[in-house]
Amino acid sequence: MTDSSTVLSIGHRPDGRQADALRPVSFERGWSDHAEGSVLVEFGRTRVLCTASVVEGVPRWRKGSGLGWVTAEYAMLPRATHTRGDRESVKGRIGGRTHEISRLIGRSLRACLDLKALGENTITLDCDVLQADGGTRTAAITGSYVALADAVQWLASRHALAASPKKALKNSVAAVSVGVIDGEPRLDLNYDEDVKAGVDMNVVCTGNGEFVEVQGTGEAITFGRSTLDALLDLAVAGCASLTDLQRSALA
Amino acid sequence: MTDSSTVLSIGHRPDGRQADALRPVSFERGWSDHAEGSVLVEFGRTRVLCTASVVEGVPRWRKGSGLGWVTAEYAMLPRATHTRGDRESVKGRIGGRTHEISRLIGRSLRACLDLKALGENTITLDCDVLQADGGTRTAAITGSYVALADAVQWLASRHALAASPKKALKNSVAAVSVGVIDGEPRLDLNYDEDVKAGVDMNVVCTGNGEFVEVQGTGEAITFGRSTLDALLDLAVAGCASLTDLQRSALA
Amino acid sequence: MTDSSTVLSIGHRPDGRQADALRPVSFERGWSDHAEGSVLVEFGRTRVLCTASVVEGVPRWRKGSGLGWVTAEYAMLPRATHTRGDRESVKGRIGGRTHEISRLIGRSLRACLDLKALGENTITLDCDVLQADGGTRTAAITGSYVALADAVQWLASRHALAASPKKALKNSVAAVSVGVIDGEPRLDLNYDEDVKAGVDMNVVCTGNGEFVEVQGTGEAITFGRSTLDALLDLAVAGCASLTDLQRSALA
Amino acid sequence: MTDSSTVLSIGHRPDGRQADALRPVSFERGWSDHAEGSVLVEFGRTRVLCTASVVEGVPRWRKGSGLGWVTAEYAMLPRATHTRGDRESVKGRIGGRTHEISRLIGRSLRACLDLKALGENTITLDCDVLQADGGTRTAAITGSYVALADAVQWLASRHALAASPKKALKNSVAAVSVGVIDGEPRLDLNYDEDVKAGVDMNVVCTGNGEFVEVQGTGEAITFGRSTLDALLDLAVAGCASLTDLQRSALA
Amino acid sequence: MTDSSTVLSIGHRPDGRQADALRPVSFERGWSDHAEGSVLVEFGRTRVLCTASVVEGVPRWRKGSGLGWVTAEYAMLPRATHTRGDRESVKGRIGGRTHEISRLIGRSLRACLDLKALGENTITLDCDVLQADGGTRTAAITGSYVALADAVQWLASRHALAASPKKALKNSVAAVSVGVIDGEPRLDLNYDEDVKAGVDMNVVCTGNGEFVEVQGTGEAITFGRSTLDALLDLAVAGCASLTDLQRSALA
Amino acid sequence: MTDSSTVLSIGHRPDGRQADALRPVSFERGWSDHAEGSVLVEFGRTRVLCTASVVEGVPRWRKGSGLGWVTAEYAMLPRATHTRGDRESVKGRIGGRTHEISRLIGRSLRACLDLKALGENTITLDCDVLQADGGTRTAAITGSYVALADAVQWLASRHALAASPKKALKNSVAAVSVGVIDGEPRLDLNYDEDVKAGVDMNVVCTGNGEFVEVQGTGEAITFGRSTLDALLDLAVAGCASLTDLQRSALA
Repeated sequence: MTDSSTVLSIGHRPDGRQADALRPVSFERGWSDHAEGSVLVEFGRTRVLCTASVVEGVPRWRKGSGLGWVTAEYAMLPRATHTRGDRESVKGRIGGRTHEISRLIGRSLRACLDLKALGENTITLDCDVLQADGGTRTAAITGSYVALADAVQWLASRHALAASPKKALKNSVAAVSVGVIDGEPRLDLNYDEDVKAGVDMNVVCTGNGEFVEVQGTGEAITFGRSTLDALLDLAVAGCASLTDLQRSALA
Repeated sequence: MTDSSTVLSIGHRPDGRQADALRPVSFERGWSDHAEGSVLVEFGRTRVLCTASVVEGVPRWRKGSGLGWVTAEYAMLPRATHTRGDRESVKGRIGGRTHEISRLIGRSLRACLDLKALGENTITLDCDVLQADGGTRTAAITGSYVALADAVQWLASRHALAASPKKALKNSVAAVSVGVIDGEPRLDLNYDEDVKAGVDMNVVCTGNGEFVEVQGTGEAITFGRSTLDALLDLAVAGCASLTDLQRSALA
Repeated sequence: MTDSSTVLSIGHRPDGRQADALRPVSFERGWSDHAEGSVLVEFGRTRVLCTASVVEGVPRWRKGSGLGWVTAEYAMLPRATHTRGDRESVKGRIGGRTHEISRLIGRSLRACLDLKALGENTITLDCDVLQADGGTRTAAITGSYVALADAVQWLASRHALAASPKKALKNSVAAVSVGVIDGEPRLDLNYDEDVKAGVDMNVVCTGNGEFVEVQGTGEAITFGRSTLDALLDLAVAGCASLTDLQRSALA
Repeated sequence: MTDSSTVLSIGHRPDGRQADALRPVSFERGWSDHAEGSVLVEFGRTRVLCTASVVEGVPRWRKGSGLGWVTAEYAMLPRATHTRGDRESVKGRIGGRTHEISRLIGRSLRACLDLKALGENTITLDCDVLQADGGTRTAAITGSYVALADAVQWLASRHALAASPKKALKNSVAAVSVGVIDGEPRLDLNYDEDVKAGVDMNVVCTGNGEFVEVQGTGEAITFGRSTLDALLDLAVAGCASLTDLQRSALA
Repeated sequence: MTDSSTVLSIGHRPDGRQADALRPVSFERGWSDHAEGSVLVEFGRTRVLCTASVVEGVPRWRKGSGLGWVTAEYAMLPRATHTRGDRESVKGRIGGRTHEISRLIGRSLRACLDLKALGENTITLDCDVLQADGGTRTAAITGSYVALADAVQWLASRHALAASPKKALKNSVAAVSVGVIDGEPRLDLNYDEDVKAGVDMNVVCTGNGEFVEVQGTGEAITFGRSTLDALLDLAVAGCASLTDLQRSALA
Repeated sequence: MTDSSTVLSIGHRPDGRQADALRPVSFERGWSDHAEGSVLVEFGRTRVLCTASVVEGVPRWRKGSGLGWVTAEYAMLPRATHTRGDRESVKGRIGGRTHEISRLIGRSLRACLDLKALGENTITLDCDVLQADGGTRTAAITGSYVALADAVQWLASRHALAASPKKALKNSVAAVSVGVIDGEPRLDLNYDEDVKAGVDMNVVCTGNGEFVEVQGTGEAITFGRSTLDALLDLAVAGCASLTDLQRSALA
């Protein structure tokens, strides 16, 4: 990243970070007494409770396939944000943003698993944002991986997997947001930066640096290939750092 | 409570408590960066995040009355419980139990306030159960009072009350559950006790020992006046202890 | 009740009743041709149609338990009240108040029955308020007991109970509202009194005077133990009178 | 009706009626204390409570037009029928049949009124079927007319109409069902006949014998013009009788 | 129709048609690659896509009866109309008009079929209005018949009927709207005429001229028997023409 | 693209196309008589009706900003697909996939417009999939641009823009899907290919080759940077061809 680091010194981030620096990231495993896996993950002031709930069996459409299933649900507490938002349960419907993020988390975490080795078990990942300061979906994915790893160990300890836990959990995944603010590509945007970002991207990588998802949006301003490349570089490096932190947390 | 304490030694509680003892109770104020008041309250393993959100103005039907408004919403995270429950947002409707508890919390907290002194401001109390082990509604009320007190101070600091904060916050409220297990009246039931309780009661008291709400249910076994009296004694004493703890937390 | 009766002469009730007097109460059994049990119950101008519908079998979660099930649904016709209310079917959701009352009626009526003696049958109590003038939930419970008794007899006549009807219907239940108006505890409030009540309480008793439910609310003003005691005295006496009226209706 | 009466003697109706005879019809005005107009209408064992609720003003899309508005909502109590039906409020949506009938009632009753003479007032007709034995929609229309007439008088008594009540209530309407059972055209089918009807028709007429609505369905068997003519003859005569009964009720 | 044709020359229709003339009608079979039967039907500028989807088996309540099932769903694209309408999926509920029309189409098409000869197969007719200019429900019925005929042939070609296709498709059905504009009965109203119609009627006939449905409404003005007769004459003749066009399309 | 074209000859596509070839694409402008802009767009057998509906004014939260608004709704007819899907209007809720695609289309089209030049007007793009064979969301975006261009011209012709149409429509946008099948990167996948794709990507570009959205998913297999680069090359070239086709259609 020698080349782009020159570029990255242009701006001043609200919290004084370098353009390619993550916020302080922490994982508190076993935060919940009931769930088979649970993590309170923090990316700066963004705080997400990720729980992995295991049930024996799979949805009807998958029965007898020998394959497991992983699904995810994302939600925000009403006052996770600067101003209070209405509860989706009270409104009686789930909004488009919630749907979109839940589906992204589900797809990302399914990329971790060998569903055959998981056996006919279902793991539901609940990602509840207790406090939001930008990057909640990427924090949710990164934290969910840790909760998922614990849930797979729990299954292994009960001899409920169809193969070894190592085979079942074939990859790790981590995710981070990147964006262009005032012309500068930056890693792990907080809320104030997110609001100002002309280009906004969420990237999910495996522990060995391959892509699971790449989602880039230039609603305010469109972007060229070189900007895309710079953002991908930042994100891949950020995910690598997060992978290390996940490993330490699980050690 | 000398008389009833003799009675209270009959059984053995799962966590070794005396029949008239509360679980360890803690209040972590300012748990959320965004809310005008916020508390993470714990009654043993029951853990509820209470936030108080202030907005200027009142609902349409109250405009011009000079009176403020306080309302509450209670919810459980899906894996707050032993087995995962479906999200009410996904089901598209709020269940009867949720409705009932939200209304109870709202009524209880309105008893704290002089709504005229509050001025035309609205405070919404969100009580999200992060972990459930019995007594979530009473923990929610007890914690919400602390969050509400902070929100009233926040309004006072902005000169947005119609009177002094002392006048606005005319009472404190605290709540506790009591029940009869194996014939023994007990204070502050945890989940295992709650499931076995023949008679189950939630009591909300002000700081000076008056009742705000008394809700007793004998679904499994009906109960006589002397049992009711014993339960009320336990609850009033329990609320008095909680009032002390609230005062310390707010000091 | 000699002591409290002195207290009870303070005020003047809108319909000239004594503070401890019920409104005229009537039960019209067999009001519906189709239901296994049905009663049109009137407490003054409050008029509730209670039907008990029997179906063989129990909900899935209860199958094979040998136990029966009783559930209740409460609703108001849109013009049961002074001003027309929107239909909950049109709004697409059931309100909190409706939920709360339906659950109360269900719990109360389950206290009448030995669910083992009922056998695997389900009884649904529908309480539709045709005209409201205060005390609709307590009238609904009181009337539902009569409809339930007829439904149990209907099952007995078809040899569909797991035991005798006397064993199945182990208790009777009746309910009444009490409240404090202008400092005076009063029995069986009508709408005008209900609106003015500082303290409002609904009490459900069995035929032998034990409590099934006690729900007291002091939203406007909190209340002390002596007020609570006076209200309970009034309510217990009122339920005893209602029990007599139920017996006559069923004779 | 000399010709068709020969035809009409073929079958034997479950309740012994002639093919061209109505069931016993009654109107109990003022059944509800609160509504501006209310009628409990009975066609044999079919029993519908019709209330007319008046509010000043009209829906937004009609404001300033100088025209009034009339709308209707039809519903069935869950145990109005032989077997209990689920509440539409609990299901969270109104069924197609309910929608269809509510719209039919609304259109029919609007045909009674000079909406200009009504002035900018809204009348809502609620037709709640307390007991169903066929012909609930036609009973609802026939009863609603009587409730509507009382509501118009109520408006007149408050000088709230834009013209005389006679001008406002320009027509009366009555409705009846007819059908072909075992080849025989019959008037005012009860439930057992309705189920067997090959052709089923609902006809709404004004007091002077003109049509407001004609709805004929031959789902089971299609029908020719002569059958249609015979059914229309029966229905027109039936509506004329109902018009007389309405007049007596309102006298 | 000699008599009424004199009457029919009074007015001038917006598109210059005679009062008893249909708009240009066309059927484009096989418009969709996936459906077992599909037709794009046009009545002038009204354009409806009718697809018939076949699935083996019948709804649970019909299983083992040996009878097939036919059902229909009608909908409009949001901009099928002059001004854009909200999507019912976004509103979260189906409107009364949609419900009513879907039910009418289903009943009408069931009149075509010998459900026993169909065997335990279900055919769903989807009628999506791509462009609306009056008469969408009657175009939907007329087009659905053609799609249904193709679906029955498809079943026959797979030997999946319980009898011959000729026996299964016992009738054809066609539908048309008629109405009175400025006192003149007219056939096949377009939108501009529909809006002005004092009396409005939809008639569904079989290929041999019998009635399946007759639905006439005189919301604005009531109508006498002679008007009804004139409208029925027009509609029966219109349906006969449509039957010819259906036959040609299917040849 | 000389290098990658060697790679692209590996596989055989179901319709014989080269790996870098689009399906036949057509735009039928003015397909709807009512909408201000409308296009029936076809990508092979995928057929989407895109309408642009203009209303004066903007949503409340945007009033007085001087800025216009563009929003989009995507839906599928129930039998657009191989097997019939349930209508979202009947289910009473919009699914996650629908939400996600509607949001994508809205963001993409907003990138075309200078919302200040649009003035306080709202354009709603409805994209209804009449037949689906892969790539429906990218066809919807590509077609919507053409409908949007017509709607902007319509506004210009009424002098309702705040600037010239050229300024208002600052960019064109086109979108295409790319994916990896059997190791080969391919352009514009049809349904059979889409189902088999290990990596799947949707790319939205402006007419001058910048990115608006990049969404790549490797649910089945993760992907490296070189695969991502090859897919982006294919997509950018595909969008350039689509831009030419859009220009011809609008000429």
